[in-house]
Amino acid sequence: TLAAPAIAQSNPKVSWRLTSSFPKSLDTVYGGAEVMSKMVSEATDGNFQIQVFAGGELVPGLQAADAAATGTVEACHTVGYYYWGKDPVWALASDVPFSLNARGRNAWHYHGGGIDLYNAFLAKQGLFGLPGGNTGTQMGGWFRKEINTLEDMKGLKMRIAGFAGKVMEKLGVVPQQLAGSDVYPALEKGTIDAAEWVGPYDDEKLGFQKVAPYYYYAGWWEGGPTVHFMFNKEKYEGLSPAYKALLHTACQAADANMLQKYDYVNPPALRSLVEKGAQLRPFNQEILSACFDESAKIYAEMSASNPDFKTIWDSIVAFRKEHYLWQQVAEYNFDTFMMLQQRAGKL
Amino acid sequence: TLAAPAIAQSNPKVSWRLTSSFPKSLDTVYGGAEVMSKMVSEATDGNFQIQVFAGGELVPGLQAADAAATGTVEACHTVGYYYWGKDPVWALASDVPFSLNARGRNAWHYHGGGIDLYNAFLAKQGLFGLPGGNTGTQMGGWFRKEINTLEDMKGLKMRIAGFAGKVMEKLGVVPQQLAGSDVYPALEKGTIDAAEWVGPYDDEKLGFQKVAPYYYYAGWWEGGPTVHFMFNKEKYEGLSPAYKALLHTACQAADANMLQKYDYVNPPALRSLVEKGAQLRPFNQEILSACFDESAKIYAEMSASNPDFKTIWDSIVAFRKEHYLWQQVAEYNFDTFMMLQQRAGKL
Repeated sequence: TLAAPAIAQSNPKVSWRLTSSFPKSLDTVYGGAEVMSKMVSEATDGNFQIQVFAGGELVPGLQAADAAATGTVEACHTVGYYYWGKDPVWALASDVPFSLNARGRNAWHYHGGGIDLYNAFLAKQGLFGLPGGNTGTQMGGWFRKEINTLEDMKGLKMRIAGFAGKVMEKLGVVPQQLAGSDVYPALEKGTIDAAEWVGPYDDEKLGFQKVAPYYYYAGWWEGGPTVHFMFNKEKYEGLSPAYKALLHTACQAADANMLQKYDYVNPPALRSLVEKGAQLRPFNQEILSACFDESAKIYAEMSASNPDFKTIWDSIVAFRKEHYLWQQVAEYNFDTFMMLQQRAGKL
Repeated sequence: TLAAPAIAQSNPKVSWRLTSSFPKSLDTVYGGAEVMSKMVSEATDGNFQIQVFAGGELVPGLQAADAAATGTVEACHTVGYYYWGKDPVWALASDVPFSLNARGRNAWHYHGGGIDLYNAFLAKQGLFGLPGGNTGTQMGGWFRKEINTLEDMKGLKMRIAGFAGKVMEKLGVVPQQLAGSDVYPALEKGTIDAAEWVGPYDDEKLGFQKVAPYYYYAGWWEGGPTVHFMFNKEKYEGLSPAYKALLHTACQAADANMLQKYDYVNPPALRSLVEKGAQLRPFNQEILSACFDESAKIYAEMSASNPDFKTIWDSIVAFRKEHYLWQQVAEYNFDTFMMLQQRAGKL
């Protein structure tokens, strides 16, 4: 009939596959892709389908971006810093040490030009990316022994990936790359001395407190890490304007939703971990300052040799300075007062 | 033709009007409704239209919820606490003194049952509501003189609305209700001694620093206020499942987007205000503690006499305690360290 093309234009059938970098057991971060997929499907009466596969089902978790870039799948849900070994620019829009907390990260993405800056880089890889989740500031990980001085860091074998590992290395730490499932036995046997994972909700499932009870904070290498949806660029560009718009809206909603969920599930998990024997410890200022200074040196080196890195990092740094000026006024003082009431048992 | 009904089912023509409580000059908060409307329109090829009207264009800003409830319009963009005089329950899902910061508020809305709890109440008013924006912690407002002791609060004529005004009243403040445009001349003439508005970006437009230079923080009555989209219940229920789903997704994205925008535009405005003579002052602990204690008494009174209030407030309080336990660990320590670097000129 004459009207048939009009139906096709309105909500055409599109069927995509999305490969996640995450196992289903990390239900909040893995679930972020399912949340986005459901939003898109429901808003189109099931006509725009994005089928989500866990890490390893189609391709290994750390090859998710490659699979989307080459067109093996149309989409992936991953973290940019997984690919920093190819080029450190990959990491900049996800997280790097001492950059931004989640609110700052999102302000930069959506209103500070972050999405466009990252896409100028991703386009060269055949990808288009949108923020797709945040965990909030992560924990600094589990340690078999207390870490009180810079001396205690020397020779420490720690499961820590990417950029942060490079900073830690300058302080004498020996970074180790281990898959999630290998971390517990390695800590138990003492093959490694420490390991970072995510935060209370995800960490609790792995039971690290039994073998490495000192639970340090904050994870200064992940002050507000962004998980990204990345799409094969051609496939993304081939979408109708309506589907493109819907995809952006659904990604922004799913992005927010992940942090909202982490903020809800982390508190009881923290309480539970402490009841099971986790001993909370802050990294001291000496250690944090040394890590901050080493990070700054690395950023300066990378900016000097990598123009793409310099462009994006300069943009983050310019906003970071402003963000932490304003955040320390109303927000920080309100929170501080509320935390004092919490400690006083008045909440 | 036979195919025509299929088109109609896929993306039926729907044309709604939304009345905002805000003037266009508050572009970030007013703009939140335009952002949502654009998302919905673009995802449906223009078939689902929500036309946005500024406060006063169709109905006065403070009657937006009534207009949606009675069906004068299908939707509004407003703040629940505007209506607290009818019943204090209206305010609970927006903000009340010393409740939650923006992240806590959102965790509670989306994962702590907040949306459903509020809708059980709104349903009785003929409305269905979804979060539709947040400003982050607001400033405490502009004062002609410094406020150093509880004694300084006595007799102070302050433009402050709702719940917070009630708390302030217990401390001797004389709350004043003034429209935005009347605040500056009243401060200039000394008819009032102080006025709260929003935060740096919105406040700068009104030039308060010229007539009331002491800019206090934090606005403890708005630690993370939620702006709501509210829909006429019957109209909302009459939407197709796809449009309903799209509306939820667009509201969640627009909700996040407003805070993201405020976080980006507030820092330079704060800097600019200080350059123009604003003098930043924190409320001291004596004043905050007295306000906290008075608030707690009011919550106890309202909970005793109003079962709907008790149900929602108990849910907020249960989460608030957990939220400020977890937030003071990784998040707060990361932020504190970054703020120290900011002050040291190292960012």
